[in-house]
Amino acid sequence: MTSTDAGAAAPKPAKDPWELPDVSGLVVGVLGGTGDQGRGLAYRLARAGHKVIIGSRAAERAETAAEELGHGIVGLDNSGCARESDVVIVAVPWDGHAATLTALREELAGKLVVDCVNPLGFDKKGAYALVPEEGSAAEQAAALLPDSRVTAAFHHLSAVLLQDPAIEKIDTDVMVLGESRADCEIVQALAARIPGMRGVFAGRLRNAHQVESLVANLISVNRRYKAHAGIRLTDI
Amino acid sequence: MTSTDAGAAAPKPAKDPWELPDVSGLVVGVLGGTGDQGRGLAYRLARAGHKVIIGSRAAERAETAAEELGHGIVGLDNSGCARESDVVIVAVPWDGHAATLTALREELAGKLVVDCVNPLGFDKKGAYALVPEEGSAAEQAAALLPDSRVTAAFHHLSAVLLQDPAIEKIDTDVMVLGESRADCEIVQALAARIPGMRGVFAGRLRNAHQVESLVANLISVNRRYKAHAGIRLTDI
Repeated sequence: MTSTDAGAAAPKPAKDPWELPDVSGLVVGVLGGTGDQGRGLAYRLARAGHKVIIGSRAAERAETAAEELGHGIVGLDNSGCARESDVVIVAVPWDGHAATLTALREELAGKLVVDCVNPLGFDKKGAYALVPEEGSAAEQAAALLPDSRVTAAFHHLSAVLLQDPAIEKIDTDVMVLGESRADCEIVQALAARIPGMRGVFAGRLRNAHQVESLVANLISVNRRYKAHAGIRLTDI
Repeated sequence: MTSTDAGAAAPKPAKDPWELPDVSGLVVGVLGGTGDQGRGLAYRLARAGHKVIIGSRAAERAETAAEELGHGIVGLDNSGCARESDVVIVAVPWDGHAATLTALREELAGKLVVDCVNPLGFDKKGAYALVPEEGSAAEQAAALLPDSRVTAAFHHLSAVLLQDPAIEKIDTDVMVLGESRADCEIVQALAARIPGMRGVFAGRLRNAHQVESLVANLISVNRRYKAHAGIRLTDI
């Protein structure tokens, strides 16, 4: 057992998690934007006023999804999506993660990459965490994209809630991980553009594995309580 | 990326996380009850009306801590604590975890064991997750205590808040993991005895590692925001 209070004694004033840069002008790309999580994030960010580009292996699939979602969303192939966007959310299935990122190394150079992939396995007993060789999906992204600014976020959102146009607010915190404070704050600000959401800095990439795999626990919670569980961090 | 909604489509009515057994008569032991987390849990459960026994390697240290905490708490050596309690919370430091449990295998046979140990390492960059050979502290406990009913819970509580007598309510959810639904519900009910807390079933022991190591992220949150962060699960 370990106290969670390490460092809490420092006398500096609290950093307000709402004091963040203006990101409203950023173009957001979503790789894997035709999947449930990708569609949901694209929809919410476009609805919040961002220019959003959905990426898919096949441009036509991306275009179809973009048309269905509306709000000015554009569909391109993954390469075009990466090239045209300021911030690129990686929402591809885990088994395509390494190959997709390897192929986009050049297009993603210099970009802010937000990995939201949860490496999970499934069997009769439900979901369980897979352990990527690099430690986590986010660390794999960082290893494959040495010229990009890799962060991790948006792991714990319900794709059902994200995609439901009747839902105005999604009350949840988005844990944001990364090595650069400035980059994390951009991602936190992006999360805060979605009504009800708050972006909270939650550590370095080496602590991404548990954040990614906590989705296995949320799946257990959802099964037991017939819910779409999210996470709130208390006391901040 | 994976949706967190798997299984949520089942038509059964929601299981109320407050429909739980009456556990008010259970005697609760806390191994490692002289540490910060152990003291805090012992204090809160005794204050809620439980008979609580603090265990320590040295009985006198346990007695001193018990006297300091009041509320009828008793101090014994670990072996006496395990023998006299119905439910035994394991709150020892990770580096003493295996040895302590191995020595108590007999006393803990048949008992409900609640592991709240977070295997963490610390360096200049802060806290990071250690990976026990068995997968998690809880799975190590289950492997070392084949005759006990092992669960995991109480990982994300602030020892500072737990120990502060001025604080009446601690608004947080306690993620409870285990293989037996009945045992998990006892632990959930125990958590709910502390004002503000709610016990929520959050998966099997194979998904304990990420719950334990999420404390590394909470430490990052606490450092950044000068907080004592806890976790709430939304939508249940």
